[in-house]
Amino acid sequence: KMLRRVLCTVLFLGALPSLAEVSQGHISVVLLGATGDLAKKYLWQGLFQLYMDQVSSGHSFTFHGAALTALEPGQRLMFDVLKKLACPRDESPNRCAVLKDQFLKLSQYHQLKTAENYTVLNREIETLLRQEGLKEAGRIFYFSVPPFAYTEIARHINSSCRPPPGAWLRVVLEKPFGHDLESAQQLAAELTSFFREEEMYRVDHYLGKQAVAHILPFRDQNRQFLDPIWNRHHVERVEVVLKETVDAKGRTSFYEQYGVIRDVLQNHLTEALMFLTMELPANVSRAEEVLQCKLQAFQSLRGLEKNSAVLGQYQAYASQVQEELQKAQDYISATPTFAGVLIHSDSLRWEGVPFLLTSGKALDERVGYVRVLFKNRAYCTQSETLRDTGHSQCKAKQIIFYIGHGALNTPAVLVSRNLFRPVMPEGSWREAVGQSDLHVFGQPLSDYYVYSPVKERDAYSVLISNIYHGRKDFFITTENLLASWGFWTPLLNRISDQPLRLYPGGVENQHLLDFEMESGEVAFTLAEAVELLKPNRLMPGDYRTIQSKFRQSPLVSAWSEDLISQLASDIEKTASRTVAHSGQFHLALSGGSSPVILFKRLARHHYAFPWKHTHIWLVDERCVPLTDTESNFFSLHNHLLQSVRVPYFNVHPMPVHLNQRLCVEEDRGTELYAKEIMALVANASFDLVLLGVGTDGHTASLFPQSENGLEGAQTVVLTESPVKPHQRMSLSLPLINKARQVFVLVLGKGKHDITVLLSRVGHEPRKWPVSGVSPSSGQLVWYVDYEALLG
Amino acid sequence: KMLRRVLCTVLFLGALPSLAEVSQGHISVVLLGATGDLAKKYLWQGLFQLYMDQVSSGHSFTFHGAALTALEPGQRLMFDVLKKLACPRDESPNRCAVLKDQFLKLSQYHQLKTAENYTVLNREIETLLRQEGLKEAGRIFYFSVPPFAYTEIARHINSSCRPPPGAWLRVVLEKPFGHDLESAQQLAAELTSFFREEEMYRVDHYLGKQAVAHILPFRDQNRQFLDPIWNRHHVERVEVVLKETVDAKGRTSFYEQYGVIRDVLQNHLTEALMFLTMELPANVSRAEEVLQCKLQAFQSLRGLEKNSAVLGQYQAYASQVQEELQKAQDYISATPTFAGVLIHSDSLRWEGVPFLLTSGKALDERVGYVRVLFKNRAYCTQSETLRDTGHSQCKAKQIIFYIGHGALNTPAVLVSRNLFRPVMPEGSWREAVGQSDLHVFGQPLSDYYVYSPVKERDAYSVLISNIYHGRKDFFITTENLLASWGFWTPLLNRISDQPLRLYPGGVENQHLLDFEMESGEVAFTLAEAVELLKPNRLMPGDYRTIQSKFRQSPLVSAWSEDLISQLASDIEKTASRTVAHSGQFHLALSGGSSPVILFKRLARHHYAFPWKHTHIWLVDERCVPLTDTESNFFSLHNHLLQSVRVPYFNVHPMPVHLNQRLCVEEDRGTELYAKEIMALVANASFDLVLLGVGTDGHTASLFPQSENGLEGAQTVVLTESPVKPHQRMSLSLPLINKARQVFVLVLGKGKHDITVLLSRVGHEPRKWPVSGVSPSSGQLVWYVDYEALLG
Repeated sequence: KMLRRVLCTVLFLGALPSLAEVSQGHISVVLLGATGDLAKKYLWQGLFQLYMDQVSSGHSFTFHGAALTALEPGQRLMFDVLKKLACPRDESPNRCAVLKDQFLKLSQYHQLKTAENYTVLNREIETLLRQEGLKEAGRIFYFSVPPFAYTEIARHINSSCRPPPGAWLRVVLEKPFGHDLESAQQLAAELTSFFREEEMYRVDHYLGKQAVAHILPFRDQNRQFLDPIWNRHHVERVEVVLKETVDAKGRTSFYEQYGVIRDVLQNHLTEALMFLTMELPANVSRAEEVLQCKLQAFQSLRGLEKNSAVLGQYQAYASQVQEELQKAQDYISATPTFAGVLIHSDSLRWEGVPFLLTSGKALDERVGYVRVLFKNRAYCTQSETLRDTGHSQCKAKQIIFYIGHGALNTPAVLVSRNLFRPVMPEGSWREAVGQSDLHVFGQPLSDYYVYSPVKERDAYSVLISNIYHGRKDFFITTENLLASWGFWTPLLNRISDQPLRLYPGGVENQHLLDFEMESGEVAFTLAEAVELLKPNRLMPGDYRTIQSKFRQSPLVSAWSEDLISQLASDIEKTASRTVAHSGQFHLALSGGSSPVILFKRLARHHYAFPWKHTHIWLVDERCVPLTDTESNFFSLHNHLLQSVRVPYFNVHPMPVHLNQRLCVEEDRGTELYAKEIMALVANASFDLVLLGVGTDGHTASLFPQSENGLEGAQTVVLTESPVKPHQRMSLSLPLINKARQVFVLVLGKGKHDITVLLSRVGHEPRKWPVSGVSPSSGQLVWYVDYEALLG
Repeated sequence: KMLRRVLCTVLFLGALPSLAEVSQGHISVVLLGATGDLAKKYLWQGLFQLYMDQVSSGHSFTFHGAALTALEPGQRLMFDVLKKLACPRDESPNRCAVLKDQFLKLSQYHQLKTAENYTVLNREIETLLRQEGLKEAGRIFYFSVPPFAYTEIARHINSSCRPPPGAWLRVVLEKPFGHDLESAQQLAAELTSFFREEEMYRVDHYLGKQAVAHILPFRDQNRQFLDPIWNRHHVERVEVVLKETVDAKGRTSFYEQYGVIRDVLQNHLTEALMFLTMELPANVSRAEEVLQCKLQAFQSLRGLEKNSAVLGQYQAYASQVQEELQKAQDYISATPTFAGVLIHSDSLRWEGVPFLLTSGKALDERVGYVRVLFKNRAYCTQSETLRDTGHSQCKAKQIIFYIGHGALNTPAVLVSRNLFRPVMPEGSWREAVGQSDLHVFGQPLSDYYVYSPVKERDAYSVLISNIYHGRKDFFITTENLLASWGFWTPLLNRISDQPLRLYPGGVENQHLLDFEMESGEVAFTLAEAVELLKPNRLMPGDYRTIQSKFRQSPLVSAWSEDLISQLASDIEKTASRTVAHSGQFHLALSGGSSPVILFKRLARHHYAFPWKHTHIWLVDERCVPLTDTESNFFSLHNHLLQSVRVPYFNVHPMPVHLNQRLCVEEDRGTELYAKEIMALVANASFDLVLLGVGTDGHTASLFPQSENGLEGAQTVVLTESPVKPHQRMSLSLPLINKARQVFVLVLGKGKHDITVLLSRVGHEPRKWPVSGVSPSSGQLVWYVDYEALLG
């Protein structure tokens, strides 16, 4: 009887498809969780839309709702939903009524609980197809079920419900896909054991939002206008925003586990940002190329730090959690319901452009948009009052993909009239005409070309259509998912104990959630607001930096993060002073892991550092090629030099690699370096030498009992390390002690013992080389963090 | 009788000064050109103001008007002016009337024409002082005369009118001070032979404008607010603007010689900019420190290029010149009456911040201002409609020194309320209160703290007071003057034959004079406007790129600018393709001047170039240290490497400088480079080699009849150039011919002959080395511009 339905449908309709089209084959759609909330609200409607759109495509369809519920009650529940399916405004009521009737006939309920159930379903599909002589095109399994059920269902589908060779399988998965990189990897690994990558369609319903889905086509169709301006020289900032007025009430059992970053930023906003910032492949309809470009864009993102985000929580959240999750009255939730995150890309195209991602619950309005604000590069000579309002180049220039709600209350694409008149696909987007008093993004609506969709489609309809068309670029591949979690997880780890700003919710928030950028970080604009502190842990900023003495020299001590920032700014101060005085600054840097944090800090936060006038020298080097990851220079290059503008001539790696061999005495690398120092550094006296300390008391690459470098006239020496790689090149103690300033950096619990020891011993460089650091006419400062100092 | 007047004045007034104050001495003011326009309009009024302000200071005064006119008519003319002196609004009419009477009595006319006249004047002053037993404090000579008269007058003053030891001499000079660096130097040298630097007060009356004069005090008094934000991280742009509605009618004999840049930008606007951008000395009232900082600021300015300016001329100007200067009807004036100039500073504080200087005649309004616009670094979470208007951090932040006229019609200092409430000196500036519907600089006036002077003073009154107080920081020292001319003269030379945009004048100008910045240059926004072209030259863009053959290889030809942009994008395409294929791109670049344009283009316009995977090699090098300005690598570094992110390891300068000597064979630099190529470049086959051609047919550093490099197995060779520096290192022809692609770039008329010759000759590398370029399995492309191709 199913056949008759299938064929009836085809024959019944006015637009009769040819047999060739019919022969494109049959598609079975299985909706798992057919009576759940998402299915009720969006998915059945989306499937109905698919049917209406594709009924004449040549494919035939059957729709199988499935759930754990037994057949009869399940059937009843499901058909209650189907009966309420709405006809879209843009569809003729007659056609819709006929199609709805067909759709109901093509739909069937199944209880899917046991392995046996799946086998039965599979047999039914096969039987139907065989009986009717229909070729099978493919099967869609839509997982609208909680994530804990995924593995079981996936196993059953894989073992019992795969279509025969030649037909495709598409499984559609709904988030959450893990809550951090590790869990996402685990889930992905499980799924991968059942499905091939091309079979999996992970839904991010934002990619079905019409304005978001149009970002790439817009960029593609407007290349002529965008190519010159879609870069850091023209774009001032990018904002990706999803504001909600609702709060988490009734959903706290989910929300408390996730919070706004996992719920919205990691997926929806990040994906929108990627569409905006990725390089554009030559052909944007090739899913594979799009995905490759998107992955590259992920790779270019600069890692997030603790201060990359501002976080808040609406005041009522705590009591909602207490009530819904039966927590004690003094339970404090650390889950953010508001986040503003500053993201940077290190790509050549976007370097330095701030990307601001913002989302929150209980805000003053519901709105979503992706906004590109361009720099104002014009000077308008005519006075403001006389300017022709439409085209002044001095007005703001922006492109906005307006996702929905808010003042416009429709998806839209807005382009400032002083930018260009965009190319828009006529069939699907139309220009909005007519008067409006609206002001959006600081300007009257009349300042923009405004386009809205010809047919408004909800995200799930769009996505279901894309699943049908196999448009994988509208879905999240495993690589994509893991790249995104890889990007967000470090921030999530870092902020887990960060204070949240409490906000009252709605219009009451006023300026409480405004935030500002400064040196690659963000902070709330208003400083005095109430904050939710973790009460039982002292925070780094709770202590001031301790200034004291260590081994008769000044000691700076703090938590490591504060210590590094203090050290970085002390180095910058020294550099600026020295350059102002003598025109150049000779800085000798050590290898090892502690300086890496310093290098990163210098690279990211010290924009006024006089790099152009700084010479970079190495304190010590391992005898490996400079491009070896073990090389101190390689690390220095990666974490600092590659990010700042030190002239090539001012960079002085140690010549450990001469004549294609490493640290051979006859090659005279040490002599060469000594000569270079003599030639460039006045009096061979470095302006600043940065040293570390090993647990054995070594410094530079001068190890206890070293034959070279602890004394004598030689300035650069070859030494032997007790650990691999054994061969080293190092500045000698006498040379180090000629420096004008020497900073010694000591970080971490592991250095506590040597720190204690050093505080007691005298000048014994043969036993503990670092004890021989004692600049003859310069200054020595110790930078020791609390962990090293206090254990 | 003079004495009686002097004492009378002192005794007459209510506020009787003590004798100690009286004993501060006598000041003689000599106004040369006492009956001229400037004197009539401003100077006598300024002297009267000085008298009113300082009558109780303890100094006594006499005022000597002087001109070439004979005594009697001169006297009559001068006293006609004096009688009309106005009483300022803030002075009581009674006091003013009394003081005016005194001022007239203290003023005297002198004919100063011959040396004898000066001797007599000097004697009169001496006699008076001796008779009355008054100590002489000093003499002010105000030159309100045409510049050609300066030298003569200066000589007379120096030889006959110097005050006795212990008293000062101050000579006040009015612009113009030359019309370029050379003439200014000459004039300065002449004056220096008569006066000491500290005796000369060169007037720039803009420095007497109250808003301009307050820039430094404002910066000083608001250090706490400005220190963190007065830099490139916070300032988006600076505008210094003087718009006039009047045109040059009646003044063309002067104006035609000078034009807007010499008339306004070189002096007034530049000085205002310097006050804004110079480093702030610890003590802003120390003239010497202020001047030093100002000179440093001049030194940091980046040199102007032709495209640093947009220029215009109002339409009526040509006929005004024809009429007033009796020129022929077809006379075309090249004098700009409008200029917009983009200036950059290379100081750490301001690097990258655009400074826009704009001035013009026949514009739509009369207004002058110095405006600092700050970057918007905030994201405001609350929707626009709900934001508290006063303090939103998302509104524009600006500080404006409003010089006068325009919508406000008063000097003023404006500070956005979301920045800070400035500290202002209460006695001299007061906050404007009350309602106003005015919008200025894009915002309602209520968004600003607005201050205006308690007493409005015209610039000359302020300056005369500063002369009296010896405030040299309000005047232009010789060094300052020459620094400014040194900065502007190269631009003036370069633009002398540049097309000017004609504009109708007044409100009719509309957007015709709007201009935009792009890559450090400016251009008018509207491209299609009428221009005063040099008519008999085809402009670039008139031709499309020609694609053809040259020496059996593909030829790309166009005007040089288009050719370079084509070449740059061809290189980028090759690079991207090669990196996609093999992971790295080996590019060998030539030295010389033609590639510099290419380097700049690559640095500024090719954001997606895969620099991270590109290896940079040199085709040839001069035997000079790499840091020598003659070095090919130095030029490559300056114009390209310093601006892009090529890893240090991928940069391969030629080792011409080993063991502290240049290109010595025993040092085996060529072998070293050959080994490096062998080690890194697969098969020693570069992905792309860029060559040039010399007028003698040389390419790389392979010269006609070269002993090395034209054939044989050696891949890197030492050669001899016929021009200095003679010694060179070069890749050999056989190595070049192993490349996968070779591009030869030929630019300019100078290369026409060799281009013609090359089109005819065969393979004769000994005569014309470039004719030997013939990649064995790679591709050769010629990039020849029209000038080289067509002559």
